[in-house]
Amino acid sequence: MSTSSKTLIAEPELQALGQRAFEALGLPPGDAGDVVQVLLLADLFGLSTHGLSRIESYGERLDMGGICKTPRIAIERAAPGLVKVDGGNGAGPLVGMHGLRAAMEVAHECGIGAAFVRGSNHFGPVSPYSYLAAEQGFASMIGSNATTTIAPWGGTDARLGNSPLGFGVPGSQGAHFMLDMAMSVVARAKIRNALKAGQPIPDTWATDSTGRATTDPKAALDGFLLPIGGHKGYGLALLVDLFAGLLSDAAYLTHVKSWVDAPDEPQNLGHFFVLIDTRRLGSTAWLAARMADFAAILHGSTPAQEERPVIVPGEIELRNMARQRTAGIEFDNATLALLRQRAGL
Amino acid sequence: MSTSSKTLIAEPELQALGQRAFEALGLPPGDAGDVVQVLLLADLFGLSTHGLSRIESYGERLDMGGICKTPRIAIERAAPGLVKVDGGNGAGPLVGMHGLRAAMEVAHECGIGAAFVRGSNHFGPVSPYSYLAAEQGFASMIGSNATTTIAPWGGTDARLGNSPLGFGVPGSQGAHFMLDMAMSVVARAKIRNALKAGQPIPDTWATDSTGRATTDPKAALDGFLLPIGGHKGYGLALLVDLFAGLLSDAAYLTHVKSWVDAPDEPQNLGHFFVLIDTRRLGSTAWLAARMADFAAILHGSTPAQEERPVIVPGEIELRNMARQRTAGIEFDNATLALLRQRAGL
Repeated sequence: MSTSSKTLIAEPELQALGQRAFEALGLPPGDAGDVVQVLLLADLFGLSTHGLSRIESYGERLDMGGICKTPRIAIERAAPGLVKVDGGNGAGPLVGMHGLRAAMEVAHECGIGAAFVRGSNHFGPVSPYSYLAAEQGFASMIGSNATTTIAPWGGTDARLGNSPLGFGVPGSQGAHFMLDMAMSVVARAKIRNALKAGQPIPDTWATDSTGRATTDPKAALDGFLLPIGGHKGYGLALLVDLFAGLLSDAAYLTHVKSWVDAPDEPQNLGHFFVLIDTRRLGSTAWLAARMADFAAILHGSTPAQEERPVIVPGEIELRNMARQRTAGIEFDNATLALLRQRAGL
Repeated sequence: MSTSSKTLIAEPELQALGQRAFEALGLPPGDAGDVVQVLLLADLFGLSTHGLSRIESYGERLDMGGICKTPRIAIERAAPGLVKVDGGNGAGPLVGMHGLRAAMEVAHECGIGAAFVRGSNHFGPVSPYSYLAAEQGFASMIGSNATTTIAPWGGTDARLGNSPLGFGVPGSQGAHFMLDMAMSVVARAKIRNALKAGQPIPDTWATDSTGRATTDPKAALDGFLLPIGGHKGYGLALLVDLFAGLLSDAAYLTHVKSWVDAPDEPQNLGHFFVLIDTRRLGSTAWLAARMADFAAILHGSTPAQEERPVIVPGEIELRNMARQRTAGIEFDNATLALLRQRAGL
């Protein structure tokens, strides 16, 4: 499938282009490789808003020194199963990959391990990290904090981020469970679409600027996204910030700098990676059989709408990856032009 | 405060009564002490539906052999930071306390540690475990699976549980962050209340028996609770079952036996306890200062409704505990009579 605004591009070609673009931005080849690995996986999964399109904001911030091109990344072993990572204000996916690898190393030794990461930036979506961990046999809980866009439950100003939280469990024959979620009911883009269409929104999506639930998309865009399950999603968003930001010695809540308002300043974002080596809990065959049974039970539920069978989180992303590895990646033409420009082509 | 249906009872008196009741049910003194510690904390927190009132269902199942009075609890060290616990079909809070202590021990050594528990039963709410862990300096992620009551997202029959998931982080001067949540938007009791009041319910609460969202409380009670955030809460409920049930070698999804339908059979419920020793990440003073600042930032948000200031998860429970430790525990008279009967008084 190719439309006027999209091009099909083969994975190796996009990988090489991304590599060249990030090297041209001043990243050493190995570091550019880490960044591209994460963002390319996002594109393969179909998460194009969190894929190589990020070259735009990353590039601007690298240009103006808001993100460090050649960070000194420091890794400290705080305990047999714990590492503290200081990302030195490097590109988020680079710092994230250092955190993931460090966590894998200690989890391999102790059966469980964690990396607490500070001094970082936007690290892409969570699912590429969950995927890489699952491929090596690790179950994972991974999160990052984010710029403040959500009001505390019952409050009236933005004091916490729409922090992503993700989980993974190695599946049978690569069918990994991968859950990657932010804490808002919907993304702001859905509210913008309602405004364009002249439609009201459900009163569970957002509040107006005074913190009151609203069905008016315009008022909602001036207000705050509501978290899933009200106080439950508020609690989960706080939890992610506590683990990713507060315990990591990174910034948290309103201490996190906005990359939109202050692109030239370090954000000091934080991440956490908790990994469990599933091979210490049972054999690969034991796990594969249970995971296949788990998926079969869910798939066996008769769908409420015949054309929409029940799915297990991760299936859409893995299906997109399989298809795009064969048929090519559906890639936005404007982003492709930007990548080529950054690559000096 | 004392109403006709409630009595104020001092904590030591309720503790002694609970101890005597569970010993009379056949539990050895130390085991009864574990069970009572968890359930009494639930009562102190104000979570009376998950407190000593559980003597009713636990007692019935202990009487008919559905729960083992004197289980052989086996603890296996699977890796330096990992323990596998087989609860031998003991009372849930007893097995849970073994899991918590085992996880604390390995987390103390490795900085992070986990217990994966099988062969258990309903273990009470999560917050007592989070509290006990936080008192010892551990941040925690704890969960349990449960009898199936929720349909897969887009499915039409109950194939997963409304599994509880909880988190804790040690706070300044005992003001621990404690989040304890199930995955449904509301509990079934709220739907029953709407039915009694002749009121419709929001269409986000539940589906009818064919899996379609409904505003009719009667149809909802014949159907399934909806998870928070739709597919997000569905994913979280699955994640809890994967960690608590599947990875623990316990039952999962439809393999979990219902204690209502088959009270005389072992459920083989599973739990997981992931603990992080925060003292390995920084000093107690460092953490306390950050936690106090974290809470102050949230409290500083002007409330949308003046009489409802912003709170941090855990504050309600800890405030209830402080009040009830001084003034006595507000305890249901019928439950008190049952406890006395079980205690042979």
